[in-house]
Amino acid sequence: MPKKNRAGDVTTVGLVQMSCVPEPEKNLKKAIAGIKEAAERGAQIVCLQELFRSQYFCQTEDIQLFKLAETIPGPSTEALCKVARKHKVVIVASLFEKRAAGVYHNTAVMIDASGEITGKYRKMHIPDDPLYYEKFYFTPGDLGFQTHDTRYGKIGTLVCWDQWFPEAARLTALGGAQFLFYPTAIGWLPDEEQSMNEAQHSAWETIQRGHAIANGVYVVVVNRVGKEGKLTFWGQSFVADPFGRIIAKASADSEEVMVVECDLSKIEETRQNWPFLRDRRIDAYEGLRFRFGK
Amino acid sequence: MPKKNRAGDVTTVGLVQMSCVPEPEKNLKKAIAGIKEAAERGAQIVCLQELFRSQYFCQTEDIQLFKLAETIPGPSTEALCKVARKHKVVIVASLFEKRAAGVYHNTAVMIDASGEITGKYRKMHIPDDPLYYEKFYFTPGDLGFQTHDTRYGKIGTLVCWDQWFPEAARLTALGGAQFLFYPTAIGWLPDEEQSMNEAQHSAWETIQRGHAIANGVYVVVVNRVGKEGKLTFWGQSFVADPFGRIIAKASADSEEVMVVECDLSKIEETRQNWPFLRDRRIDAYEGLRFRFGK
Repeated sequence: MPKKNRAGDVTTVGLVQMSCVPEPEKNLKKAIAGIKEAAERGAQIVCLQELFRSQYFCQTEDIQLFKLAETIPGPSTEALCKVARKHKVVIVASLFEKRAAGVYHNTAVMIDASGEITGKYRKMHIPDDPLYYEKFYFTPGDLGFQTHDTRYGKIGTLVCWDQWFPEAARLTALGGAQFLFYPTAIGWLPDEEQSMNEAQHSAWETIQRGHAIANGVYVVVVNRVGKEGKLTFWGQSFVADPFGRIIAKASADSEEVMVVECDLSKIEETRQNWPFLRDRRIDAYEGLRFRFGK
Repeated sequence: MPKKNRAGDVTTVGLVQMSCVPEPEKNLKKAIAGIKEAAERGAQIVCLQELFRSQYFCQTEDIQLFKLAETIPGPSTEALCKVARKHKVVIVASLFEKRAAGVYHNTAVMIDASGEITGKYRKMHIPDDPLYYEKFYFTPGDLGFQTHDTRYGKIGTLVCWDQWFPEAARLTALGGAQFLFYPTAIGWLPDEEQSMNEAQHSAWETIQRGHAIANGVYVVVVNRVGKEGKLTFWGQSFVADPFGRIIAKASADSEEVMVVECDLSKIEETRQNWPFLRDRRIDAYEGLRFRFGK
């Protein structure tokens, strides 16, 4: 019998925080082992980190690296769909999508516990900063912000840089999402001061807790760990409840599979106590569609 | 000579966190003393807490309390304009505005250092929760989200419940504001568990730090303190820098005048390092103008 949730039930999420080696097959194998472990420990929805199949290749601009991309469906989703079906888990997987010659995306695939692809989200906000040269690789997403109804809950997925944009969280939550998943690859640059590293981590955690609070949803962030090239990924994957409380957090320096129970009734309880969605001034938000000023 | 800022200069803000008594004149006198103290200690823009002229009357629905309202301009702005001119400070003052018979607003007035009213903001998001029966008293604002250019910086003011809405912070920042001021009156209900009190305070501080981070602006929050009726206001007024770091914080139980230097060059520096405004997907935010779902 598949696990089945009713309203008010608990959904158990799994977070696979891992380090990556240069060989994609080894990373895929490790990710699948992480999903299996999470499922055996009770996870119903398992999220992998951003671009888990490879090292974080956007540290350099190199056309040779486009060969890491694959179609969706493709070899990775085929493998993951099997895992989803076998372990009866929903999987959120971040992949380098080859859509057409010269059109690539940073895409998250949602696979239902039946083993079918439920939908995909193409990263909408693309960064471009030293060692994060993503605008070279990824065409900005064109599928908008989405919620997918899975066996174990309504989920929205956003990817890494999206986490700095309250608009992305709001639009996804307005679609009905109970969970915002954020596959992530964020790390510290070399020779940065410790105080700046701490400020960056604090800002990253804070703004995402803010999305949980503003929207009354669970926020699940899965970050990679370990050193690759010049970046030291800071791990610290976490789950925040609908009032922004961190209910689980992984270490900064180790691989970790976290399994966390999320009480879905907390969403309605929080929103009844803090009815922000009731009071939004939708008549006065037109300006959000402009770049700046008048 | 009036104090004058150049780009890259420091603007010094003053926060007057106080308790209130039933007599409006006494509260006004205390607020003016606070402004004077802040100015003497170097403050250039001084912000008062929400509805500083009275106790927080929205704990009950009583038509007798409409007599606390006054016109703008009116007696309070007249007194405050004199103070602004005398001490050469910008003042942000939250008042119960009588606009017309039966039309009242929760309004913030921005008074420039010249003693002239620069503009006013009428609270856009109105709460209605046990002991915060604001929908009874206040017509929702109809002036939108604004930035005012004052002698010491571009300031936007939002009021209390607005602080839970990322849209309000974003729209104000897009108008060019370097500072978001939040006059506030938030307190703990009686007999609430300590853990819930802590969660509420943490959520409140977190979401506002998030506004600073998302927008690269200074956030200045001035809350009242002391017990009035059933509410114990939790003070803890604070200033967050453009990366969300709390650079000054008042106590939870005492009146306090805080004077805090804000380096305006940090705004551009932060936004260059974290260029969120560059990457907003303004083509995909149409849905923010809808209540929920499709």
